[in-house]
Amino acid sequence: MAKANMFYAQSGGVTSVINASACGVIETARKNRDKIGKVFAGRNGIIGALREELIDTGKESAKTIAQLRSTPAGAFGSCRYKLKSFAENQREYERLMDVFKAHNIRYFLYNGGGDSQDTANKVAQFSIQEGFPITCIGIPKTVDNDLPITDNCPGFGSVAKYVAVSIKEAGLDVASMCESSTKVFVLEVMGRHAGWIAGAAGLATEQEGDAPHIILFPEIPFNKEKFLRKVKSCVKKFGYCAIVVSEGAQHNDGTFLADAGGRDAFGHVQLGGVAPFVANMVKDETGFKYHWAVSDYLQRAARHIASATDVEQAYAMGQAAVEFALSGKNAVLPIIVRKGGKKYSWKVGEAKLEDVANVEKTMPRNYITRDGFHITDEARAYFSPLIQGEDYPEYKKGIPQYARPKNILAPKKLKRWKA
Amino acid sequence: MAKANMFYAQSGGVTSVINASACGVIETARKNRDKIGKVFAGRNGIIGALREELIDTGKESAKTIAQLRSTPAGAFGSCRYKLKSFAENQREYERLMDVFKAHNIRYFLYNGGGDSQDTANKVAQFSIQEGFPITCIGIPKTVDNDLPITDNCPGFGSVAKYVAVSIKEAGLDVASMCESSTKVFVLEVMGRHAGWIAGAAGLATEQEGDAPHIILFPEIPFNKEKFLRKVKSCVKKFGYCAIVVSEGAQHNDGTFLADAGGRDAFGHVQLGGVAPFVANMVKDETGFKYHWAVSDYLQRAARHIASATDVEQAYAMGQAAVEFALSGKNAVLPIIVRKGGKKYSWKVGEAKLEDVANVEKTMPRNYITRDGFHITDEARAYFSPLIQGEDYPEYKKGIPQYARPKNILAPKKLKRWKA
Repeated sequence: MAKANMFYAQSGGVTSVINASACGVIETARKNRDKIGKVFAGRNGIIGALREELIDTGKESAKTIAQLRSTPAGAFGSCRYKLKSFAENQREYERLMDVFKAHNIRYFLYNGGGDSQDTANKVAQFSIQEGFPITCIGIPKTVDNDLPITDNCPGFGSVAKYVAVSIKEAGLDVASMCESSTKVFVLEVMGRHAGWIAGAAGLATEQEGDAPHIILFPEIPFNKEKFLRKVKSCVKKFGYCAIVVSEGAQHNDGTFLADAGGRDAFGHVQLGGVAPFVANMVKDETGFKYHWAVSDYLQRAARHIASATDVEQAYAMGQAAVEFALSGKNAVLPIIVRKGGKKYSWKVGEAKLEDVANVEKTMPRNYITRDGFHITDEARAYFSPLIQGEDYPEYKKGIPQYARPKNILAPKKLKRWKA
Repeated sequence: MAKANMFYAQSGGVTSVINASACGVIETARKNRDKIGKVFAGRNGIIGALREELIDTGKESAKTIAQLRSTPAGAFGSCRYKLKSFAENQREYERLMDVFKAHNIRYFLYNGGGDSQDTANKVAQFSIQEGFPITCIGIPKTVDNDLPITDNCPGFGSVAKYVAVSIKEAGLDVASMCESSTKVFVLEVMGRHAGWIAGAAGLATEQEGDAPHIILFPEIPFNKEKFLRKVKSCVKKFGYCAIVVSEGAQHNDGTFLADAGGRDAFGHVQLGGVAPFVANMVKDETGFKYHWAVSDYLQRAARHIASATDVEQAYAMGQAAVEFALSGKNAVLPIIVRKGGKKYSWKVGEAKLEDVANVEKTMPRNYITRDGFHITDEARAYFSPLIQGEDYPEYKKGIPQYARPKNILAPKKLKRWKA
């Protein structure tokens, strides 16, 4: 009988290190050629399995695969597509099984957040029921850092580093000019439900007076009066005020700050995110000159300033997932476990897919200062190791050289899938 | 008689390498202690001279001064403050002379764009007329790259590198997800009157299909129909469309795209810049899912991804300015001259302040493709050397370590200035 093949898919919003996990998977599988046949990657994630669009990673050179370690975004494509429950759409699960059977796939490695781990768990159950058991292993990934159990998520450390470096640099810019120009600067960062990314920006504050002066977390209901008082006191004390706002910052009633109900002259929903909203509020109430930035995808794609710790962990998670699969584990995922001791160290741990599925971990209250506007020493101790070390990509003519996989599809064996 | 002192001031919007010029000035002056006494830096630029707020850079350690080379923004503070003409406000010129006389300042080095070179030139003239001649030397600086005569401006190469790297990374992100998610991404970059920064982003396109697919220049009047056709054809051909738009992009009548006359529900001027405007236009006309980013100050402060060429040139301009001053030149500034030959090389040249003052250099038409949406090979040949080389700052605990000068003011000798 032919050696069993492996199917790997990237899921959800991509990160600057998800390809480092892919690199860990493929390189580890290649070291185990005696046990694993081909490694297929889903073209555009799980959609690729449904459509039988299986990228044959065996067609890629060792150099290209190695280069994935320093390439941002999803090299094989990702998607926002959540499989429904069995009851709602059993057809999708049956199709997955058909594709897996047709291509002798016995291992399914799913690289994503909580939703994806839920899907992987369902596939594991369904495959047993169908009598064609698939070893399903998750690989954690999310810039939002909102998965439970694991100490942190691959992808987060790098976006954390990006936002901390960015607000430090922009803060220095504003500090230079504040005497005669911009006094308030607002940087919007990701994190719709949890303030981890916003919180990490707080690492830029190494001494009193350093940017950011104010962080607006989704976990702390926005209090306009208190916020404006704080802005004014920062401008008085430091000459300027640098603010980091999470896209998920919200009012007491749970509505997002950005959902201000504004409409432009043409009746369109108000342009822009929470940064311009906050900046405008400050302008209206204080008259301070302001600037704002929205880094959007730049932050989660910023491989040029990735955290070496993050890259290493992302790779290790991919590697461990293959090792788990080969050691007979199922319906689990490798996680990052922080070891005790003064100096940061970590090891690979293990969690059940069902335990990480569909649970969102928010910032603990003791990570946020009492006034709600910055991070505590406990938070610093947690965040700091995750952004440490620089892992620069190679450059050619001033431009980073990222992998360009050929992404050749394996020949199809089944009928076309109709969604 | 005491050795003559030097006054150095930073002017206008800061850059990620203006402190490298300051480093060049101070280190070169320190090497010429036999000829130059103290180097004072204006606190917040020329305002510091008017207020007699003179930072005594002699109080800074050699280490701090060396660190300026890799520190973004204006370490001594900058300002947006243009001296009026003699006729309009001779008092300001007289005050400058009083401060210079009181502190035995015979050299004035002004680090800025066209406006600042105009000011330096006027001071040179006025000082002769007053019988206390000041040697006035400019040091070129502007992220916008819009100074004439010099091949390029210090500050530009690094912002160019930042935008090229950023759109490459964000482009890969969008490419990963476009099958099921965002299809159009818009990045707004600086450049209110000239498209140099937007153009440099075009370097990210190394192969057909690479981001950015469309660049909107201030030099090319916006044509909505043509633009939307191009967006649709990119999405059809590549699956997505990555757009870089200059903040100065404008309609045929010269009004900015961002000045769309929009008002929100409260009658406020439309939030947000040109990126959300363009993104919303695409959404309204095509229905494509979009994202947008505005990097604002992040781009010009991004010392973490500075161009080594740019850092080297910024330093050299500071060094040359001191050498010019000592060699008896006046009312000139060092410039960057591109030497011929296949391999890029450059040397320090010289231009008259009056020739660079108040002239804006825009992108030549032959740098922009015929369709107006990208850069030509001529432009690539011009831009490419300017972003080459990486000059990384030092990091500690994952955060770049930027200089923290003490900025101690020299004792005042004059009455308080009343503006």
